[in-house]
Amino acid sequence: MPELRSGVDIEKNSRCSAIAHDWARRTFANRQGIAGAPLMNTTGSFSNYMDYDGAIIAMTSDGIGSKIELAERLGCYTTLGFDLMAMVTDDLVANGFEPGNVSNILDVDTLDAAIVDDLMRGLFEAAAAAVVAVTGGEIAELGDRVRGWGPRMHFNWCATAIGFMPRTRQPIEGGLVRPGQHLVAIESPGFRSNGFSLLRSIMARSFGPQWHEVACDGGRTWGEALLTPSLIYAPAVCKVLDAGCRVTGIAHITGGGIPDKLGRVLRRTGCGARLPDLFEPLPFMYAAARLGEIPPETAYRQWNQGNGMLMLVEADDAAACIALLGANGLRARDAGLVTDDALITITAQPDRRENLAFAVGQA
Amino acid sequence: MPELRSGVDIEKNSRCSAIAHDWARRTFANRQGIAGAPLMNTTGSFSNYMDYDGAIIAMTSDGIGSKIELAERLGCYTTLGFDLMAMVTDDLVANGFEPGNVSNILDVDTLDAAIVDDLMRGLFEAAAAAVVAVTGGEIAELGDRVRGWGPRMHFNWCATAIGFMPRTRQPIEGGLVRPGQHLVAIESPGFRSNGFSLLRSIMARSFGPQWHEVACDGGRTWGEALLTPSLIYAPAVCKVLDAGCRVTGIAHITGGGIPDKLGRVLRRTGCGARLPDLFEPLPFMYAAARLGEIPPETAYRQWNQGNGMLMLVEADDAAACIALLGANGLRARDAGLVTDDALITITAQPDRRENLAFAVGQA
Repeated sequence: MPELRSGVDIEKNSRCSAIAHDWARRTFANRQGIAGAPLMNTTGSFSNYMDYDGAIIAMTSDGIGSKIELAERLGCYTTLGFDLMAMVTDDLVANGFEPGNVSNILDVDTLDAAIVDDLMRGLFEAAAAAVVAVTGGEIAELGDRVRGWGPRMHFNWCATAIGFMPRTRQPIEGGLVRPGQHLVAIESPGFRSNGFSLLRSIMARSFGPQWHEVACDGGRTWGEALLTPSLIYAPAVCKVLDAGCRVTGIAHITGGGIPDKLGRVLRRTGCGARLPDLFEPLPFMYAAARLGEIPPETAYRQWNQGNGMLMLVEADDAAACIALLGANGLRARDAGLVTDDALITITAQPDRRENLAFAVGQA
Repeated sequence: MPELRSGVDIEKNSRCSAIAHDWARRTFANRQGIAGAPLMNTTGSFSNYMDYDGAIIAMTSDGIGSKIELAERLGCYTTLGFDLMAMVTDDLVANGFEPGNVSNILDVDTLDAAIVDDLMRGLFEAAAAAVVAVTGGEIAELGDRVRGWGPRMHFNWCATAIGFMPRTRQPIEGGLVRPGQHLVAIESPGFRSNGFSLLRSIMARSFGPQWHEVACDGGRTWGEALLTPSLIYAPAVCKVLDAGCRVTGIAHITGGGIPDKLGRVLRRTGCGARLPDLFEPLPFMYAAARLGEIPPETAYRQWNQGNGMLMLVEADDAAACIALLGANGLRARDAGLVTDDALITITAQPDRRENLAFAVGQA
């Protein structure tokens, strides 16, 4: 049986990110005391927040990786805009910022106007869902520097979002996380835009090159299941914040999964989390892991496993938080508690016999 | 002789940009009256400026296209940061905005930490030159969705910049352009990041697959000449604006060249420009056009031809503008006058026998 390759070297990726971050941090002095000055967070280290004439702004960039291949395989291009929008807006709201504007860059090999129209229509619909204005964009024809699946236009797609800190709120940085606070999980009906290198490898090994046409569940093909668009959490989360719920940390579960992304929030205080009541991975998520013989520890590091965001809230506010998210169209549940050890413990669903434990320090 | 292919279908590119713009414009209503609201420009149409709590912000995105292949061919990765920084900061300053922050997205096939280090060191140096803080970044491993030249890491690189409108200034939109104003040209010592599809095609046809090693001029190879890093104009231009020089329009000469980019500035008022005194194209620019049998009309649409930016200034301020640019390390000259016809007339260098004329309306 051929070896599974996720195509991503996590150790090397971390090292390269650290290199990029080190060089970037050395540029912060260029704007000290003037518009665009990077601000300190509550630990006294630089954040990615800036001061523009009294307005506190954050910007974040991301792409949707190789999930694009699913759109190429299915010939369905109208949902990727939701994935792109979700990646950037939900990273902003994870620090409490209200997303305002998005700019996108579409790299293509050669242009297909019908596909571009579908992509941009999707981004338009996603912008309405995200309450964001798309105020910038660039399309670059790069010829054979861009490749993909099948005979039609291939592309890579990324975006940058600007978010805004209302004067009534403070950035959410995890510094106020305390044992006993609750973790509210928000459901994700799909893989969002992370872990697709491994997913594609599993599918190809299990079903061959036309794997996207193979039946998955509920009358859907595997292609359709994997293309499930991302929910955009930011507007509902902003409603929770505006309502005064005391939210001390937010983890947007993207690359590295709950161990990495929740770990980053908990690391600030050395706390941990016990999570006995997460949303179960959806059946097709279980099935993908089973096909790939992926142990649960790895699955929770590769994928969101049905939980796209975790909000850390004061115990008294958890019910209100869940109710507000529900009133804004998101399924949410009380998934567990902040603890005083530096461990993230996940009760693996559905047999509940197995507890997974991840150290916060090494996340 | 094989046909030259620029790889870029300009008509289709314009159509796709229009599609993207139409969808984006329909998202502006999502932020009306709240932070991030897109603002009207002086013609009453929406611009890409936003209001964040009283701070007027602009954002712009761009990449450096296939100039990256030059870095791959030469194994020199430290100068591309200047190209990337110049593309986005100088688009901002062309509307009078002072660039403050840049976020970058690096798409790679597989990571090479040494190359990432060189790229990010270059971006760090460019940020110092641009007086900008790099406050965001993302590295995405996309496997075979990204290709390039040679055996090492391949990548595509793009960025988004945020700029700021000081309260003492107004956005520069071309609405105040009048006949008799002067056009100040700022020299570009290279092709910046545009027109490389055609350049690479010319080189390959003329010199074969190892064209970058062929001698060009002054002891340089063609590869070295084409990799010439972009000058970053924004800080010097901001000094001109802060000094009170009355600048009515700025054209950053990128894709489409002077006919397109100056045309967009002039279109607002129906004015034209007579440009008898532009910087001459550098010898290697002439040589590239000659090798490709590219007529001057096409060369001025494909490339900057030695003039990276044109500033439209009131006649009385032209000398001060040129002096200030010079004091800030840029060569600039009085290149011509705004006229009352909708024509851009360029005296093609160096024989000065030929005048090129481009209609502003069709630019």
